[in-house]
Amino acid sequence: MEIPPVVIDRLPLYARALASLEAQGREVVSSQELGQQLNVTPAQIRKDLSYFGRFGKQGRGYNVRKLLDELRSILGLNRQWRMTLVGTGRLGRAILGYEGFAPQGFRIIQTFDSDAEWVGKQVNGLTVHSTDDLEKVLADSPVDVGIVAVPAETAQNVIDRLVACGVTAILNYAPIAAHVPPHVHIKRIDPVLALQGMTYYLKANAASK
Amino acid sequence: MEIPPVVIDRLPLYARALASLEAQGREVVSSQELGQQLNVTPAQIRKDLSYFGRFGKQGRGYNVRKLLDELRSILGLNRQWRMTLVGTGRLGRAILGYEGFAPQGFRIIQTFDSDAEWVGKQVNGLTVHSTDDLEKVLADSPVDVGIVAVPAETAQNVIDRLVACGVTAILNYAPIAAHVPPHVHIKRIDPVLALQGMTYYLKANAASK
Repeated sequence: MEIPPVVIDRLPLYARALASLEAQGREVVSSQELGQQLNVTPAQIRKDLSYFGRFGKQGRGYNVRKLLDELRSILGLNRQWRMTLVGTGRLGRAILGYEGFAPQGFRIIQTFDSDAEWVGKQVNGLTVHSTDDLEKVLADSPVDVGIVAVPAETAQNVIDRLVACGVTAILNYAPIAAHVPPHVHIKRIDPVLALQGMTYYLKANAASK
Repeated sequence: MEIPPVVIDRLPLYARALASLEAQGREVVSSQELGQQLNVTPAQIRKDLSYFGRFGKQGRGYNVRKLLDELRSILGLNRQWRMTLVGTGRLGRAILGYEGFAPQGFRIIQTFDSDAEWVGKQVNGLTVHSTDDLEKVLADSPVDVGIVAVPAETAQNVIDRLVACGVTAILNYAPIAAHVPPHVHIKRIDPVLALQGMTYYLKANAASK
């Protein structure tokens, strides 16, 4: 059975809320409470989880530890993922310094830049490779995820090269709607799109003149 | 009529694709072609746009300039939006240096940090204010959007203070599911959630051991 992508996208939120409940020593949680924390209806939570079998008993709530373990296993969160970063400019260096990846099992093991000024330098314990050497470095040391933090003009080319190297998951920070083959998964981190989705609601009461 | 939030979230993508077509000198585009560019079905595009009235004629496609103007007006993209940034650490400085905001009408006009080392310093042409002065600065100079780039532990407090200052749109880079009153819009920029939504698909063919 094909699970709808929107369901897959909600599961990490459930896992995160459950991890926080587990850290507080909670053993059981209702779909009502979980829904309230996450701004999702309890019915949605029950429906999403029903794709993966039976969790919890009617009227008794979910066992926090058990559901969390299941979600971690479903999502592959209980393992280490190797990532490569292309683009070591200001944005790339902020990504390298981001402390949220490692605790969740995501590790950047290589970094690239096309600026000769940066190639060979150390950033956050990694030597910056030349983007020209992408194929060579990835052949020696394959990764699961490619992070793209290059300017819009070169992003599609970098993504094509990552895909040719066998990378099947891409986190794209460049402001383009990149094209990838159907077997490749891509997610966009795009603050402008997020802002533009909110200004619709702001028009009436804006501070700007 | 209440427009579903998922529809609102797709409109900026349509606007971006249309702007690119306009730049190429295109006058007309079909929902088929637009859908192909954006990985959305033509039926979805027609349905989304139908919320806002009649665009295009059956079998003739959309007038690029006219639809783009309409979308810009609907989304409030044809104006300037004032933003404040709380957190001028590594991530905050990358946000300040991000060149994608200004061309889309989003301008960061204030920046705050709680680290005395940074307060009073200049970053990208802005003087870093103490986070203690948030209420005072915002009273003098209100903004439309608050960007939160502080650690997880202090994020909810900063968000509460922004909301108390009358900010009704928040872009949250802190890895927490923040709570806001119903009249406030919040979007999360969370690369770990994005990655965790992809690892589900990677489990079978992972490079990691």
